[in-house]
Amino acid sequence: MASSTSLLKRLVVGRPFRSDQSPTEPTSLPKRVALPVFAADPLSSAAYAPAQMLMALSAGGAAAFVYAPWVAAGVALVLVVVVASYRQTVRAYPSGGGDYEVAATNLGPVGGLTVASALFVDYMLTVAVSVAAAIDHLGAIVPVVTSHRTAFALAAVALLVAINLRGVRQHQVLFAIPTYAFLAGMVALVGWGLWRILGRGDDLAAPSADLEVAGLATGGGVAGVALIFLLLRAFASGSVTLTGMQTLANQVPAFKAPKPRNAALAMLTVGIISILLLAAIVTLARLTGLQYVEDPSGQITGASDDYVQPPVTAQLAETIFGHAPVVAMLVVAATALVLFFAANTTFDGFPLLGARLASDRYLPRQLHTRGDRLAFSNGILLLGAGAGLLVLAFRADVVSLIHLYIVGVFTAFTLSQAGMVRHWTRLLRDERDPATRRHYQRARALQAFGASLTGAVLVVVLVAKFNRGAWISIAVMAILYLLMRAIRSHYDTVARELTPTDIKPVLPARNHAVVLVSKVHMPTMRALAYARATRPDTLTAVTVRVDPDDTRMLMAEWEGRGLEVPLTVIDSPYREITRPIIEYVKSIRRESPRDVVTVFIPEYVVGRWWENLLHNQSALRLKGRLHFESGVMVTSVPWQLASSSRKGPTDRMVRAPRTRDVPDFERIPED
Amino acid sequence: MASSTSLLKRLVVGRPFRSDQSPTEPTSLPKRVALPVFAADPLSSAAYAPAQMLMALSAGGAAAFVYAPWVAAGVALVLVVVVASYRQTVRAYPSGGGDYEVAATNLGPVGGLTVASALFVDYMLTVAVSVAAAIDHLGAIVPVVTSHRTAFALAAVALLVAINLRGVRQHQVLFAIPTYAFLAGMVALVGWGLWRILGRGDDLAAPSADLEVAGLATGGGVAGVALIFLLLRAFASGSVTLTGMQTLANQVPAFKAPKPRNAALAMLTVGIISILLLAAIVTLARLTGLQYVEDPSGQITGASDDYVQPPVTAQLAETIFGHAPVVAMLVVAATALVLFFAANTTFDGFPLLGARLASDRYLPRQLHTRGDRLAFSNGILLLGAGAGLLVLAFRADVVSLIHLYIVGVFTAFTLSQAGMVRHWTRLLRDERDPATRRHYQRARALQAFGASLTGAVLVVVLVAKFNRGAWISIAVMAILYLLMRAIRSHYDTVARELTPTDIKPVLPARNHAVVLVSKVHMPTMRALAYARATRPDTLTAVTVRVDPDDTRMLMAEWEGRGLEVPLTVIDSPYREITRPIIEYVKSIRRESPRDVVTVFIPEYVVGRWWENLLHNQSALRLKGRLHFESGVMVTSVPWQLASSSRKGPTDRMVRAPRTRDVPDFERIPED
Repeated sequence: MASSTSLLKRLVVGRPFRSDQSPTEPTSLPKRVALPVFAADPLSSAAYAPAQMLMALSAGGAAAFVYAPWVAAGVALVLVVVVASYRQTVRAYPSGGGDYEVAATNLGPVGGLTVASALFVDYMLTVAVSVAAAIDHLGAIVPVVTSHRTAFALAAVALLVAINLRGVRQHQVLFAIPTYAFLAGMVALVGWGLWRILGRGDDLAAPSADLEVAGLATGGGVAGVALIFLLLRAFASGSVTLTGMQTLANQVPAFKAPKPRNAALAMLTVGIISILLLAAIVTLARLTGLQYVEDPSGQITGASDDYVQPPVTAQLAETIFGHAPVVAMLVVAATALVLFFAANTTFDGFPLLGARLASDRYLPRQLHTRGDRLAFSNGILLLGAGAGLLVLAFRADVVSLIHLYIVGVFTAFTLSQAGMVRHWTRLLRDERDPATRRHYQRARALQAFGASLTGAVLVVVLVAKFNRGAWISIAVMAILYLLMRAIRSHYDTVARELTPTDIKPVLPARNHAVVLVSKVHMPTMRALAYARATRPDTLTAVTVRVDPDDTRMLMAEWEGRGLEVPLTVIDSPYREITRPIIEYVKSIRRESPRDVVTVFIPEYVVGRWWENLLHNQSALRLKGRLHFESGVMVTSVPWQLASSSRKGPTDRMVRAPRTRDVPDFERIPED
Repeated sequence: MASSTSLLKRLVVGRPFRSDQSPTEPTSLPKRVALPVFAADPLSSAAYAPAQMLMALSAGGAAAFVYAPWVAAGVALVLVVVVASYRQTVRAYPSGGGDYEVAATNLGPVGGLTVASALFVDYMLTVAVSVAAAIDHLGAIVPVVTSHRTAFALAAVALLVAINLRGVRQHQVLFAIPTYAFLAGMVALVGWGLWRILGRGDDLAAPSADLEVAGLATGGGVAGVALIFLLLRAFASGSVTLTGMQTLANQVPAFKAPKPRNAALAMLTVGIISILLLAAIVTLARLTGLQYVEDPSGQITGASDDYVQPPVTAQLAETIFGHAPVVAMLVVAATALVLFFAANTTFDGFPLLGARLASDRYLPRQLHTRGDRLAFSNGILLLGAGAGLLVLAFRADVVSLIHLYIVGVFTAFTLSQAGMVRHWTRLLRDERDPATRRHYQRARALQAFGASLTGAVLVVVLVAKFNRGAWISIAVMAILYLLMRAIRSHYDTVARELTPTDIKPVLPARNHAVVLVSKVHMPTMRALAYARATRPDTLTAVTVRVDPDDTRMLMAEWEGRGLEVPLTVIDSPYREITRPIIEYVKSIRRESPRDVVTVFIPEYVVGRWWENLLHNQSALRLKGRLHFESGVMVTSVPWQLASSSRKGPTDRMVRAPRTRDVPDFERIPED
């Protein structure tokens, strides 16, 4: 039965794994491996966050770039608070359930589902943004990638799906390499850059330093309320630095013991590196006069319509390693690689969250099924489809995607920390030890501050970006939320209906067998024989009169063959098949509501799909309709035609001579 | 159960007709109605045939138009012979079976199927060409139609499909009006035109008379072999005049008695009118200096790329009724209308031919099913789809479509007449009366001449047009031919396999009941109860172990409830459901090949399509696979959830207290 689709599946996914063959729990990783593997997502945002900040500032003209360090400082402050706050979360909830678990436990289903919706949107955008940014960097080395960016981005998403369907999680040690390569590149870039500028006093200018940049609104400077709004928008854009911090909170079980402590330590390390990277890149950008704008053709004097701004890191690498282009290229390639792996990390988190919600019955149970390679295949496919759709809709454009991105992340931050405040309050209620109480109170104060801060950022982001795309995220989150509620309520209803009652289900009073007949041929003969063998209380053959001549011939043959079963002919003035049969079955049920009706449908089975087109599909339609009638069982009596198998004679049951007696054959009443 | 699709169907198609409500046989029509109704197809070709001739000649430059009358004379000659020959066919085969019947009867299935393939292609092209030409004429009045020609043509095809699905055949008297209007318009055009030019001596010049037309090849004149080839191609194009003649031969039963005589008379009349129309239009075109070219932008000096040539009749109407534009507009509108009705006539012929071939088992039997309004709906939809595809592929361009058109028509002409030659030869074998023999011999000679002539035209058409599109028709005909052979051979194989043998089908030795269990809930309980009621020889419940915890819980509950049926647990290391069950069932069959296995599948039935997505589709997949196992019956035990109906309590069988005893309950062996 190896069809061509299953062959393709084998090629992409590989041979299936046995359930007991491979540990489904992630192995415990030492910090030097765990840190880089899970840090790809939070660290990689350094590759696009500074550009987003500069871009937002550019609306105020070239002069506004001077505010970049201050905005970066604001972002760094939020980052410090969030890291400190999440270190508390990690210690309190070391199970890896992350924000969803915290919110669901402390805020109830409404909070839990809101966080889940936010995280789903966030995960899809992480993949889309990271892949799009990776393409940007790749395009700075290989220009053809830029001109076909959507196609390359879609191919990257497809590759991620394939990698994760194969479930090569055991190679995670390999996955540490991109992060180390990226960090090495950044250290070289920043170190060498600062040494050249500050140490040697080289006069370095970024390729974009000489461009004449105009503001978006008045053209001149910005002041007052407009300036505040400009800075807030830049801050909102820069907050993208914080994305990916959740990844670490979800991955506590993957660390070596003591897991919570090591995870909290890793979080601190990642937070410090993030801030250093942000500071270093913004500093270098200012020192080299690097400019980055929102609308190149509109803001840059003399820029053509197809002018593409190289990514910030690519510009810096070109400026600083101008004398060694191979090094510059390596730095940019490492950045592209870490971005790709950041997207890959998400393919762990999303399916796990999906499985978790499926086991809580908020999502279809298919998301809780492990595929051939023990991964949650359906979640992987869903994430791939969602990210692919985003890439397609926004043509793999980082700028447009970023506008949608931050809302989900900060919704999760805020609700999760609010949940933690409740968590500490609950613990405080029963705690009497003063030292412990002080510890709880400090933790609560910190997390309350964190929640307020991220809540404030969320408001800023919403105000600054609502009509630029954030509304789409809000809408999708709302839809996901309502969908999950509806699914849960459906499953609950079904479970309630299906719970066995104390009254034992009873046997039907009588069983009426109805054999559908269209022609006197082998499938009909077998269905009649089989129906008899089930010893029903009554047995009738039924045919529908569509063509009077056909029916007359059928009746004559029925008589001629001396078939002892009575043949009932139902009229069908409108040439339908299904409705008259349903009516007939209903009439039996109406006469004796406690009886059961079994409808025997002789079917022939063909082997090739196109052969199905040549035979009436009315049996299939009829079966579907009969399922809606209560107290009606449907038995298919299949007859395998030669084409359904190449194993030789199709059926022994009929051709082989019988050796045993026919029990009870004549004793069956045939009213 | 009135879904939105069925509501749409009611709106388009109307209320269904009872089988006995309306005569399916066409009513007998008096000649004055029958003639115009069936003549729309053959006569309407006068609207585009002259243009095709002029167009082909234009390749030789403006000077070549002088040959137009001679080419027209050649076409007229062929038309005379074909009409005379078909009058014999109509008398010999008055049943309305047409060319297919003649060829199948006299040349065997190869000839019959070849003619059928040719006619199918011909019918689709008749619709496409007629609709495209109608759009051309409509566009001469309403220019917006020309700029959206494909859309308007597709809408026209859709309208034709809808009209014919409603089956408004009883209004055929109305359908005579367009033909009479068209003929009246032509008489006025030709009469007034000839009077003005020859009688009054007006100097009339067509709008295209002043254009400077260049040849396609050398630019200068053509002579020798090139001239002969030019004339042959013009002749091939002009032969399109003959299309539609078959329609009359198929419609003999619709005439009043004596049917064959009246049909033959109608054919003669239509032939004469066709020749007169062709002659008159070519004459007027020559007298007004009308020019029509193949490639306007290439051949006409100074023509822009989007220059559209108005149809010949439209140009003549504008020239001759220039002083009365309303009259000109009416003539063109009548022409558009008759072309539309020519396409409509085809919607009678194609489905009838399809039904005929379906009843001969060369096509799927669905083509032999009458729809709600007693029409052969599937044939109508198929013709609409084919014609729509042609319109779309060739952008409703008459010129491109015509190249594909004539091949099918002349294949049918030639084979049908060849069949008639055999027919007369067979009759002559047994006929002794000298007068009758002479009559037969004359008829045979005439039809042999006709066959040779149309065969020669077919060769000319193939040579002249093969690489311009005729190859597409040939390819489609070949595919249809092979397809019909394959379908027939499939049906024959199935019929052979299904014929009841003399050995009576025997009852299975023993019946093993297998109830599939995933959870202990109401559907499972019912399936167990029902399986018991069928009194099998053995009864086992079977579950597949995918998740060890789930299975352990299931087994505990099974024990706890004291269910007396043994529960078999099948291991599934690769988390599949279908394969382990198939293997289990096969193992039972292997042990006792003469026994039958009945698999009971508890299913729950939901009312809304999206609810199906929330429940595992494995039951459906399993049922499909089980059908391929011989000796295995599949019984669905449906459980209707509340959402499947709004009629209140879903099931009385279980909830209502039982009043009767349970017969034989304990006597069933449960090994």
